Amino acid sequence: MNRPQHGGNLNWAASIAGCPVSALIDFSASINPLGTPPSAIAAIVNSTSQLNAYPDPEYPELRSHLAEHHQIDPKFILPGNGSAELLTWAGRELAQQNFTYLITPAFSDYARALNAFGGKILSCPLSLIRLTQCDRTSPPSPPNLGGRRIKSPPLAPRHAPTLPIPVDVHPQSGLLLNNPHNPTGKLWTREEILPYLEQFSLVVIDEAFMDFLTPSQEQSLIPLIEDYPNLVILRSLTKFYCLPGLRIGYAIAHPERLQKWQKWRDPWSVNTLAAAATAAALQDKKFQQQTWNWLQPARSQLFEQLEAIPGIQPLASAVNYLLVKTESATELQQKLLVNYQIVIRDCISFPELGDRYFRIAVRLPAENDRLVQAIAAMV
Amino acid sequence: MNRPQHGGNLNWAASIAGCPVSALIDFSASINPLGTPPSAIAAIVNSTSQLNAYPDPEYPELRSHLAEHHQIDPKFILPGNGSAELLTWAGRELAQQNFTYLITPAFSDYARALNAFGGKILSCPLSLIRLTQCDRTSPPSPPNLGGRRIKSPPLAPRHAPTLPIPVDVHPQSGLLLNNPHNPTGKLWTREEILPYLEQFSLVVIDEAFMDFLTPSQEQSLIPLIEDYPNLVILRSLTKFYCLPGLRIGYAIAHPERLQKWQKWRDPWSVNTLAAAATAAALQDKKFQQQTWNWLQPARSQLFEQLEAIPGIQPLASAVNYLLVKTESATELQQKLLVNYQIVIRDCISFPELGDRYFRIAVRLPAENDRLVQAIAAMV
Repeated sequence: MNRPQHGGNLNWAASIAGCPVSALIDFSASINPLGTPPSAIAAIVNSTSQLNAYPDPEYPELRSHLAEHHQIDPKFILPGNGSAELLTWAGRELAQQNFTYLITPAFSDYARALNAFGGKILSCPLSLIRLTQCDRTSPPSPPNLGGRRIKSPPLAPRHAPTLPIPVDVHPQSGLLLNNPHNPTGKLWTREEILPYLEQFSLVVIDEAFMDFLTPSQEQSLIPLIEDYPNLVILRSLTKFYCLPGLRIGYAIAHPERLQKWQKWRDPWSVNTLAAAATAAALQDKKFQQQTWNWLQPARSQLFEQLEAIPGIQPLASAVNYLLVKTESATELQQKLLVNYQIVIRDCISFPELGDRYFRIAVRLPAENDRLVQAIAAMV
Repeated sequence: MNRPQHGGNLNWAASIAGCPVSALIDFSASINPLGTPPSAIAAIVNSTSQLNAYPDPEYPELRSHLAEHHQIDPKFILPGNGSAELLTWAGRELAQQNFTYLITPAFSDYARALNAFGGKILSCPLSLIRLTQCDRTSPPSPPNLGGRRIKSPPLAPRHAPTLPIPVDVHPQSGLLLNNPHNPTGKLWTREEILPYLEQFSLVVIDEAFMDFLTPSQEQSLIPLIEDYPNLVILRSLTKFYCLPGLRIGYAIAHPERLQKWQKWRDPWSVNTLAAAATAAALQDKKFQQQTWNWLQPARSQLFEQLEAIPGIQPLASAVNYLLVKTESATELQQKLLVNYQIVIRDCISFPELGDRYFRIAVRLPAENDRLVQAIAAMV
């Protein structure tokens, strides 16, 4: 069986570990360990009788729930078959620009979506060393700009640009950014991103992990969407609501752009059960609060425990995963699988990271402890 | 509310009928009236615990079930988010040909998929008059070529070509064909289609309704797939298994082509519940037999009853819907909605048909009787 390109291919991991998939402890997929909210499962089960009808291609109810959640106009929302489907169409748009500036390391599906339409990629590597040093001295506690509408330009250019992008950007170019960033866990503030909206013809921001930040911490650009026709935001319910198997995400952008995408793709992209689960999940304030209550202390503790192990170095993270520097990640991965049935995410699919890094999800405290003990015994 | 582009938009219909959606009798969507098989619903409910993991992008189990069902190699199968998703990628392939010959009237999503990638469409209109006359004298009872592998050329060219395609086809062109044909219900035999596989660089056949034909009647080109690298077959579980809300279909083609499509689209196109329902539905031989037992007598009776009504003329059909000629379909549609809460499919989205035709699904005998009585009272 081949090494999987993406995290979360547990069949491969089970074959190495020599155990059934159900016996694995999966730190490779950065999914909420509280599990799928029961409210969402109930909505799915209650909606099976509606499978005999086509969804309305306009998805009016689903869009209205999402619009209410984000306090925006439903016309600015296009739901999709996971944000990965919408990334395909974002990739097509970006490929029409002269170049797409891509902050690396980057989720491998970004290159897939850009290459699918012949996009020209300019890689802009994050300095991981600087990131480690910087974040260790000042743990993330970003300022919140607050308010719904922050009127656009001009923000004074900063002395030190926050993204690793050359000063002279090619005209008519796109920027594909992941905030919070995967796999580093780095969060940029709205203020830090805004100048790039002036500089680039098209800015696509994948906010797949933004839900893990509390309302006072989060740095989504959604409140600014009406002011920026060149902005596309991708969101997903996959990670926060633990629904990778259901396929539900959405794009937020100006209506003209979304109407174009709707004609590129088929009319019934979102399945009825995903639409029902979304409505239930968005209303589940208790689950949201539980997740925030779990994450912050669990991440801090895991970070500190890992930092205490000689030979590895975690990077500070704003979200539910940690990137960790090591000697050989694939060797450690193999040992953890064989000896502990623990799955960690190697970073082979991020060429800039190669074998020197691995990524782990923050899970429940008892599981995190087990991971820490296993790593301490193996490195 | 706007008139829907596709059949099955019941919100629009309910607003005209002045009743809740649940009170409508829907003849507009050509879906199996036996409903979703309970085996599929059970598989969905039993799989909700698996929503917390990403599907394996290779979908090995799903492809193996489909391969067994069709007695082909799994490598020739690509499952998708409904066959409509796969049509998008077929459209992209066809758009790379010089022209795409499209038999019309055609499902409006064909043009959507071709236009999405700048495809050049050459419309080839079916003669509906000839079709009516021809089919009325010889009701469909196609020969079965039998056997799994029918070696390809050369079939002697026929004196009367069976598709309305000019003799001089542009070189390096594609053909997009729907068999059985929607909305006419016309079925072409394998023998009739085979010569076009020699003539065209790429042939895409949408077999979304083929399941409604019994094993001795069906004319799928799936058994020939290994012999024709220029053939793509699209299949769907939507119509036969009454699962339009779940989104599951598949393409059958040579592996190189499917691997290319897999890179064009995102890795997790099929949701976990759809994969589980497919496995259950394919094994539900009882449901398949029940459907075949229902369809043939129900269609014959409906056809005869409609034919007896002055002023309308149904076309003979091999599948689960009938195209019917009338004076004004939208007027009849309006009357049936307001007076009987019955929804029929107008053919406005088929420009060749306009207001002179409507399409109805064959439903259960009692429902069909109600439709016949309502039409008889209104025309």
